[in-house]
Amino acid sequence: MKYPNGSRRVSASGSNPRRQQLVNKYSNRGMTLEDDINSTNQFYLESDKAIIHKKPTPVQIVNVNYPKRSAAVITEAYFKQSSTTDYNGLYRNKYVDFEAKETKNKTSFPLANIHDHQVRHMEAVVKHGGVCFLIIRFAVHEETFFFPAEKLFPYWNGQLTGGKKSIPYEIINEEGYLIPFQYQARIDYLRIIDELYF
Amino acid sequence: MKYPNGSRRVSASGSNPRRQQLVNKYSNRGMTLEDDINSTNQFYLESDKAIIHKKPTPVQIVNVNYPKRSAAVITEAYFKQSSTTDYNGLYRNKYVDFEAKETKNKTSFPLANIHDHQVRHMEAVVKHGGVCFLIIRFAVHEETFFFPAEKLFPYWNGQLTGGKKSIPYEIINEEGYLIPFQYQARIDYLRIIDELYF
Repeated sequence: MKYPNGSRRVSASGSNPRRQQLVNKYSNRGMTLEDDINSTNQFYLESDKAIIHKKPTPVQIVNVNYPKRSAAVITEAYFKQSSTTDYNGLYRNKYVDFEAKETKNKTSFPLANIHDHQVRHMEAVVKHGGVCFLIIRFAVHEETFFFPAEKLFPYWNGQLTGGKKSIPYEIINEEGYLIPFQYQARIDYLRIIDELYF
Repeated sequence: MKYPNGSRRVSASGSNPRRQQLVNKYSNRGMTLEDDINSTNQFYLESDKAIIHKKPTPVQIVNVNYPKRSAAVITEAYFKQSSTTDYNGLYRNKYVDFEAKETKNKTSFPLANIHDHQVRHMEAVVKHGGVCFLIIRFAVHEETFFFPAEKLFPYWNGQLTGGKKSIPYEIINEEGYLIPFQYQARIDYLRIIDELYF
């Protein structure tokens, strides 16, 4: 597994061993939301609870070299925007689909973090019977919320007709569900799905 | 959309306009199975029947340049093996998951076309209540089959204990389901799902 900013994992806890232990056990400081979710999904997979994967980053490949006796090298490619959400899979017979976003904002979640075609995708998923939601982390508060897609739509469509360009933190705190941080299954969102959909 | 071997689309039908028309209307010659499935999925999406996407090709990105005032360029990357199947999504409340493979073999489908971790993934999908299958095209016969994952597993596990390394064409013809080729929804596999799972 790759940690693009792996050095943060070390520096976050400093050199105090007691603090190191606290950070490892009770905090997610220094891990990105994506790392936490990937590790949670890996735990779900290995414990046979659910099959949920992050989709690969969509890339437009322009040029590939095929050197003799070694692997093909992509020498020119560009990042493409995804037309769906980043994560999907299967849990207890249900199709599960979500997007994960981290914000440094203290007071609200800016809707600019998501794209219109992603919201259209989420609307279709809900319509066809899937479990669909956002995982939103407020980095400053060190809080991670499960926010059902159905509760996102009114805010999204509201901003298109002159409403606010963000969802206030209080709303996410009230209408969403705090996902407790824990050692294994660090972001245990299946627990929230159990409560809401079964 | 990119066609890595786009030239085949033109050359397949040659320059005879009558033949060109026949090819366009009644045959899939010259179109890859992936093209056909992508176009089918697009039709399903636009007609609001199902939400099924091909996952992006997994790529290990090693080096990216960020030129001033233009898009980031990936200058070194490598193809990675996928740990799942290529297609998944949602249809009539059900999680749908499949792999598509084309073979030039006339008499059998070589199991080397799929990988062990893909079969393990398919086993997990079936266990957790998903609809899981292979779409197998015999290019020479111009026939495309829906082959349920449950029927693949005995052959896969058989080859691991000394059994045949391929599934005979007759078996796929008998135990699988021919997907008729048509103009819209060229590979209309949802029709087979309707019959088998509802």
